[in-house]
Amino acid sequence: MPRPLFKVCPPDEVICLLRKHLNLKEITGNRMETVSIKASLDRILAEDVVSPLNLPGFTRSTMDGYALRAEDSFGASENLPSYFKIIGEVKMGEQPKFRVNSGEVVKISTGGMLPEGANAVIMWEYTSPVDNSTLELRRPVAPGENIIQEDEDLKKGETLLVAGHKLRPQDIGALAGIGKMEVKVFKKPRVAIISTGNEIVPPQVKPQRGEIRDINSYTLGAGVKMAQGIPLYGGIIKDEVNDLEGELRKFLEEDKAEIIIISGGSSLGTRDITVEVLGKLGEPGVLVHGVAVKPGKPTIVALVGNKPIFGLPGHPVSAMIIFNLLVRPLISWLQGGDYNEDFSPKIEAELVGNVASDPGKEDYVRVILYQENGKYYAKPILGKSGLISTLVRASGLIKIGTNVEGLKSGSKVMVELF
Amino acid sequence: MPRPLFKVCPPDEVICLLRKHLNLKEITGNRMETVSIKASLDRILAEDVVSPLNLPGFTRSTMDGYALRAEDSFGASENLPSYFKIIGEVKMGEQPKFRVNSGEVVKISTGGMLPEGANAVIMWEYTSPVDNSTLELRRPVAPGENIIQEDEDLKKGETLLVAGHKLRPQDIGALAGIGKMEVKVFKKPRVAIISTGNEIVPPQVKPQRGEIRDINSYTLGAGVKMAQGIPLYGGIIKDEVNDLEGELRKFLEEDKAEIIIISGGSSLGTRDITVEVLGKLGEPGVLVHGVAVKPGKPTIVALVGNKPIFGLPGHPVSAMIIFNLLVRPLISWLQGGDYNEDFSPKIEAELVGNVASDPGKEDYVRVILYQENGKYYAKPILGKSGLISTLVRASGLIKIGTNVEGLKSGSKVMVELF
Repeated sequence: MPRPLFKVCPPDEVICLLRKHLNLKEITGNRMETVSIKASLDRILAEDVVSPLNLPGFTRSTMDGYALRAEDSFGASENLPSYFKIIGEVKMGEQPKFRVNSGEVVKISTGGMLPEGANAVIMWEYTSPVDNSTLELRRPVAPGENIIQEDEDLKKGETLLVAGHKLRPQDIGALAGIGKMEVKVFKKPRVAIISTGNEIVPPQVKPQRGEIRDINSYTLGAGVKMAQGIPLYGGIIKDEVNDLEGELRKFLEEDKAEIIIISGGSSLGTRDITVEVLGKLGEPGVLVHGVAVKPGKPTIVALVGNKPIFGLPGHPVSAMIIFNLLVRPLISWLQGGDYNEDFSPKIEAELVGNVASDPGKEDYVRVILYQENGKYYAKPILGKSGLISTLVRASGLIKIGTNVEGLKSGSKVMVELF
Repeated sequence: MPRPLFKVCPPDEVICLLRKHLNLKEITGNRMETVSIKASLDRILAEDVVSPLNLPGFTRSTMDGYALRAEDSFGASENLPSYFKIIGEVKMGEQPKFRVNSGEVVKISTGGMLPEGANAVIMWEYTSPVDNSTLELRRPVAPGENIIQEDEDLKKGETLLVAGHKLRPQDIGALAGIGKMEVKVFKKPRVAIISTGNEIVPPQVKPQRGEIRDINSYTLGAGVKMAQGIPLYGGIIKDEVNDLEGELRKFLEEDKAEIIIISGGSSLGTRDITVEVLGKLGEPGVLVHGVAVKPGKPTIVALVGNKPIFGLPGHPVSAMIIFNLLVRPLISWLQGGDYNEDFSPKIEAELVGNVASDPGKEDYVRVILYQENGKYYAKPILGKSGLISTLVRASGLIKIGTNVEGLKSGSKVMVELF
């Protein structure tokens, strides 16, 4: 059997290599679209959003009470209340037509517009109406108290959101607040998923003895969706150079996908074919052959022109771990976003049982997370990386760093949830 | 002004009250649908999935190498290698037609089907072909080594997934693996969002002086989507009992929504109208008037028949905090799922600056998260709860418990990201 020269690369280096060789601007620059803000959740902004107006646009009360000139209230106390003339009531949603002069107050509700002359609101709790037109005040208020200035939420010309930002519910609310009903976002990257291997059949087909249903295309397709990409399910390619080359050229030449994932077969023969084909499709070609991650070593990363192509290991556990480590961040970059692994959901737990690890590799261990007396415990699942059921049973992964030889039972670990 | 009797409830108690009064089974029992597994990410299973077969269904090699009878290899070493007859090669995806007898090996690739007679695989690294038909072995293998048994991933009749489970990428891969192309899931709850307040206008309308665009419907609509619900945007209701009652009856009587959120106005007058209407729509009516959360106190929770209705505070910050605290878990329950607040993404950080807090209330403080020398810091944003821009600037929230009076600068805090 051939013994390929594995140039094994730590995952950080793979990410650096991709960042170095990829022309991100060329990809994102051509991939923008305008969407309604109602459909913009989790999309990445392709424009800075500058407020065209002051928000709220008028001075508002933040309390139910009475608007007044703060200076008039100075000195008012429980023992020595002040008395004011009630000259009217602010109607919600309307500009008050009167002016508050010295010694006067106007009844106002939360969100009501402050009348001219007034510069503060006193909460009704600190007042008592003596009769229909007289109010007793038992506390002073400071100028500006209990009001929002007309430009306090946003100033006209102020940048509200910047390109590259991932839209959250509150961002969408703020866009509504300034009347921006559509935003320019980056298109979702299309990710082609091709399965390889003579033994792989589509899941709707009953496999013959020796055949197995395609698991990885479905795991990876859902992973692409989770990363806000669009999965394009390609065919299942038998282990023939021409077939794989034809399928890849279809996606490359017709510019159908931004990223291509090849997955499925795990044998050296299948990998050799992948390397051979990736080597002849275009420059710079294969960048990485082998990643220092366990499980996941037999990973191939190539770039053809400006299209990243991944040859993921065939074992379902390895394929998913490498996808999360290398492909998920890329899907985020190609839609103009950032990807910060540190921000993915993690829980601190105590390890139950010892875990061995090879130095020189990042080790990812599947664990079951459980809670006892308010404390989290992570129990390793030590099954083979060919078993999808181990991923189904697992709550997440713990990472054992390159220079760590293993972890002892009772160690504190961070469980990355999936 | 009227002074309503606030029965202020801690948020945990609100959740218990809802759990107690709601007939969850009645709602989820009628809301199931069958979807393709490709469309099933993040959906909640409404059925147990039992494997109809053994997976992989045949004994497979997990390595590239040679299949043999393990017993024949016992005693082989670098100094005293054993020699075997190579009788053929397993073709990927095919059932091998030969049988491995004592002293024989068969070339096999990862994923290949083990021939009859063989019970282990030796990796090619520990072998050398002497000629086309003779193999040298320099290591023994144990029975079962480097193979996956035919029922090792899943056994026929084994439960793979249970009802109530939220489908992740690997679950979908496993469903493909057993040929299950469709699954029964709970329908996404429909959540009606109604805005109230004379001052509120739709965001596409240019507000007059004293009017303000509807922010909350858009923040909450995106929040509903994030929780896997379907937002139904209702109208903006002026502060009239009849209008609000009519709008609510529309959603209730035509069974258009599982949950109704009323939001928008923040004045006592608007709240009074909400309470009045909720009190006359049906039993049990208003369950909670006031929640011991800051910001967010003026919250109303009602149940009309089996329909939960929330009157959220009008201030955008308060509305979002209460939505996350009370409505988000409910959206999960109503689609048959669980909701574990502890599993939401959090990051430990050091507090920058002191934060005061009222005892007797849960306090939620907006913070900006930043990293310096590999350490996270959380800087509080102390703006008014009426300012949506403070939520846009914030990376997340820190919770200050009911019995804590405040936090000192330098305290360790958990930032709940949003």
